[in-house]
Amino acid sequence: MDAGTEAPLVADPSRIQVLEEKLRDLEERLAHVEGQGAEDRVALVVFSGDLDRVLAAFVIATGAAAMGQEVSMFFTFWGLSVLKKETRLSGKTLFQRMMALMSPRSSKNLPVSRMNYFGVGARMLRSMMKQKNVSSLEEMISLARELGVRMIACEMSRDLMGIEEAELVAGLECGGVASFLADSLKSRTSLFI
Amino acid sequence: MDAGTEAPLVADPSRIQVLEEKLRDLEERLAHVEGQGAEDRVALVVFSGDLDRVLAAFVIATGAAAMGQEVSMFFTFWGLSVLKKETRLSGKTLFQRMMALMSPRSSKNLPVSRMNYFGVGARMLRSMMKQKNVSSLEEMISLARELGVRMIACEMSRDLMGIEEAELVAGLECGGVASFLADSLKSRTSLFI
Amino acid sequence: MDAGTEAPLVADPSRIQVLEEKLRDLEERLAHVEGQGAEDRVALVVFSGDLDRVLAAFVIATGAAAMGQEVSMFFTFWGLSVLKKETRLSGKTLFQRMMALMSPRSSKNLPVSRMNYFGVGARMLRSMMKQKNVSSLEEMISLARELGVRMIACEMSRDLMGIEEAELVAGLECGGVASFLADSLKSRTSLFI
Repeated sequence: MDAGTEAPLVADPSRIQVLEEKLRDLEERLAHVEGQGAEDRVALVVFSGDLDRVLAAFVIATGAAAMGQEVSMFFTFWGLSVLKKETRLSGKTLFQRMMALMSPRSSKNLPVSRMNYFGVGARMLRSMMKQKNVSSLEEMISLARELGVRMIACEMSRDLMGIEEAELVAGLECGGVASFLADSLKSRTSLFI
Repeated sequence: MDAGTEAPLVADPSRIQVLEEKLRDLEERLAHVEGQGAEDRVALVVFSGDLDRVLAAFVIATGAAAMGQEVSMFFTFWGLSVLKKETRLSGKTLFQRMMALMSPRSSKNLPVSRMNYFGVGARMLRSMMKQKNVSSLEEMISLARELGVRMIACEMSRDLMGIEEAELVAGLECGGVASFLADSLKSRTSLFI
Repeated sequence: MDAGTEAPLVADPSRIQVLEEKLRDLEERLAHVEGQGAEDRVALVVFSGDLDRVLAAFVIATGAAAMGQEVSMFFTFWGLSVLKKETRLSGKTLFQRMMALMSPRSSKNLPVSRMNYFGVGARMLRSMMKQKNVSSLEEMISLARELGVRMIACEMSRDLMGIEEAELVAGLECGGVASFLADSLKSRTSLFI
């Protein structure tokens, strides 16, 4: 062996050791970043019970699901009306009964946020949607279910308004603000509607 | 050469090979994380057609654009009124004509969400803004354009309400929920206003 | 030394140099990604001054703070009413005085967004909350403070409506849209309520 020519080809193992350590460090940091990043997920709070806003929520929810996002819709307060199939008065306090009587009986009775005129506006909007072959709210709800959109009824609102499980459509989850936040904090997009 | 002292300096090439492979792996994971991360981007849905809410939308949009964010505003439903320059009744169905007649003719006629009193509230707000040298809505719209804020008119709402391109101001894009979501899923902040 | 068996164990130092360079490059990219990622942070715009919506905002804010997020609430427009402790008319213009007189005097006077009936709806909601042992709005505001939720009063709205610092509760920050955006752009979740 000729030390003069061989020497530059001989690598110092301590340099490799340094590299190995740096690589382990980078890998840890990368794993942390990966764990922190947003998932392919969209979280919507449906607070409003107005037909026009609820429609917007379902257009966004089904659109996002069709684009491969995991979508969860958290229905709270007036938004719970969307999930109602009937109204029961027994077991409710006076105020809860008054609220139930003044709230829409089901998704079919939602008012519009403007120009409702005792339901005329809402019927007009539904009829315009039909003319233009836009899916009705009920069709959008079905589509959302088919696409695997999670629908969560807010427990606190249900409890407050005394809405029983039997008054809501089947196949819902129940949850508090923590379940919304758990999804929302990992989401690419969160909206309050 | 004295093998006894030289040996520790000779690195094992298989260790380098392992490092090279790990590095390739890390690079792939990093590229994935980079591709998944949010861009410097803000996406707003302007659903409301109320002067006060629309002003808030433009304050946020122009503020974000001034801070170097790519901003897109997606105008849907009542929000389309912001983009109207005139109202045409020909070519509209009965319901569409009724809706057009009851909607604001242009951004100058937007009501406020509270205490509107047939437009008095909106005029009061505009006059208070003038007194305080706050830019008017129309000035904010111009500023947004200058700052490169993208304004997208929702196709489905336009179609539903029968609003023709000629009724809207120039320089708009048209798009569906997919174009909102395409921006929103890459955004740091998305708001539904 | 026997060159025939030793040779494969001798690593080429130029391969190490390549690795070192690639590693430096990866580290830079990773640092960039780390700096761009969202922090454990939630940012809320409280635009609405309706009791029901404001309650939703505080449920989300306190829930997020309890889950370890840094939370900031940016109160603007009607939302400023939540932070008012009294109303002063002196020093206000005519329109500002009219607005002050028609706005809620403090958080205790907020209307509900639907079925308010001159305050009856709001009182009904508060009483339903009491029956169900749900914290009142004022208790939620205190809890939010204890949990370190930052509350920021929008300067532009304050200026527009002529609301003086003495009219607002103590311990608030003041800021413009830039301070909201500074938080929001780093947040996991931003909502406009």
